[in-house]
Amino acid sequence: MTDASPTAAVLIIGDEVLSGRTQDTNLNTIARFLTALGIDLLEARTVGDRKAQIVDNLNALRGNHDYVFTTGGIGPTHDDITADAVATAFGVALPEHPDALAILERRYGPGEFNAARRRMARIPEGGSLISNPVTDAPGFQIGNVFVMAGVPKIMTAMLEDVAPRLRTGAVVHSRTVRVSGVGEGAIADILTAAAQASREISFGSYPFGHGSDGEIGTNLVVRGRDEAAVEAAVEALLGELAAAGITAARV
Amino acid sequence: MTDASPTAAVLIIGDEVLSGRTQDTNLNTIARFLTALGIDLLEARTVGDRKAQIVDNLNALRGNHDYVFTTGGIGPTHDDITADAVATAFGVALPEHPDALAILERRYGPGEFNAARRRMARIPEGGSLISNPVTDAPGFQIGNVFVMAGVPKIMTAMLEDVAPRLRTGAVVHSRTVRVSGVGEGAIADILTAAAQASREISFGSYPFGHGSDGEIGTNLVVRGRDEAAVEAAVEALLGELAAAGITAARV
Repeated sequence: MTDASPTAAVLIIGDEVLSGRTQDTNLNTIARFLTALGIDLLEARTVGDRKAQIVDNLNALRGNHDYVFTTGGIGPTHDDITADAVATAFGVALPEHPDALAILERRYGPGEFNAARRRMARIPEGGSLISNPVTDAPGFQIGNVFVMAGVPKIMTAMLEDVAPRLRTGAVVHSRTVRVSGVGEGAIADILTAAAQASREISFGSYPFGHGSDGEIGTNLVVRGRDEAAVEAAVEALLGELAAAGITAARV
Repeated sequence: MTDASPTAAVLIIGDEVLSGRTQDTNLNTIARFLTALGIDLLEARTVGDRKAQIVDNLNALRGNHDYVFTTGGIGPTHDDITADAVATAFGVALPEHPDALAILERRYGPGEFNAARRRMARIPEGGSLISNPVTDAPGFQIGNVFVMAGVPKIMTAMLEDVAPRLRTGAVVHSRTVRVSGVGEGAIADILTAAAQASREISFGSYPFGHGSDGEIGTNLVVRGRDEAAVEAAVEALLGELAAAGITAARV
């Protein structure tokens, strides 16, 4: 056994997600990134561009998890208040960071580097920069909180600079078994027995093909940190399904 | 002025979202549904298939909002524990609901209606059913909480039965102004002044075209419940942008 795996939470910040204007994809990107590193993402929250709400939720999450990842609200406009909220949450000042200032001064031509853009150089005291290879304006880390952009392309690029700073856990191995021709209700008993037999392994059940679109079935996802145990669980599951006359195969 | 608009929260339930296996789209569907009804979606949370976590978050959200919408965890398998968690959160029993039982008995043929499928007839005491025209197994409402399926097609269909039960608010009107050729930093001052001039109107700024993909610009979204005030704000904004020599148009 390894040490307990690190846990994480995500805080999505932006009115545009809650109004439905924007379909968030950052949570999924971060989730896959963390899964690959063996870090357990245990919860996520989405809040609006409201400072008190950001502060309260950030403080709740950072006290309960090894890492918190935020997205959104670090641009130059009036609704970009994440740095202010993070500074308040940590009880620190929000001065201009000399390295951030230098990066932004290089980025913008004479006359372009206005007061609004200069706001992006403000980093909570004690924070270190997260590099942004797309548009230069950096994110930042303070304590166990990683503050990243909301634009998916930039957020994804920032993860490259975040990865080396994280303690990783034992990677979770995952196998999928596709059950064809029956809904999940037909295999629920087999699945329950399998879940009770191996407490270290998790079994997820994801039906497909509802409605009028042809084939129905269920994808069973078997996950665990011990790869041999995952393999054994999959073999046992396939055996039980075959014995019940149910068509199933690894995918 | 109308009465204060109702507020809402969403609780997404499912390990598959937090592992990154599944890209959630239900939050966006519910967000657009609520926006159209004039209901303010103020926050959303995503949790795993863990009963205590579901109970705690549901209780926090239902005490703070007029409505809570949950998705996921109401199928027949061992990891479908939402009904159990909701009953615990409300401190009520979880008996079989006669109407739900009748629906499921009609749905499944002789020999198909096994114990696992029968679990889906359990509804927290005092709950009323939410109809499911896709696969029949109902969702339910208890108090101010609406419990829906996780499969997007089913969840979307359930909203049809939910809509008539909701108190609606004044609809938010939204207009988008597309600013071309400059990033959001170039128009931030104009936007800040506009936001300060009209407190009833919200201004969002959403840059596009980062990186190497050609045109850059920013979409400005002007939103408010008073349509004439939104129109006036858009006209004022277009005037300020034109005076600064910046290309902008309604889209």
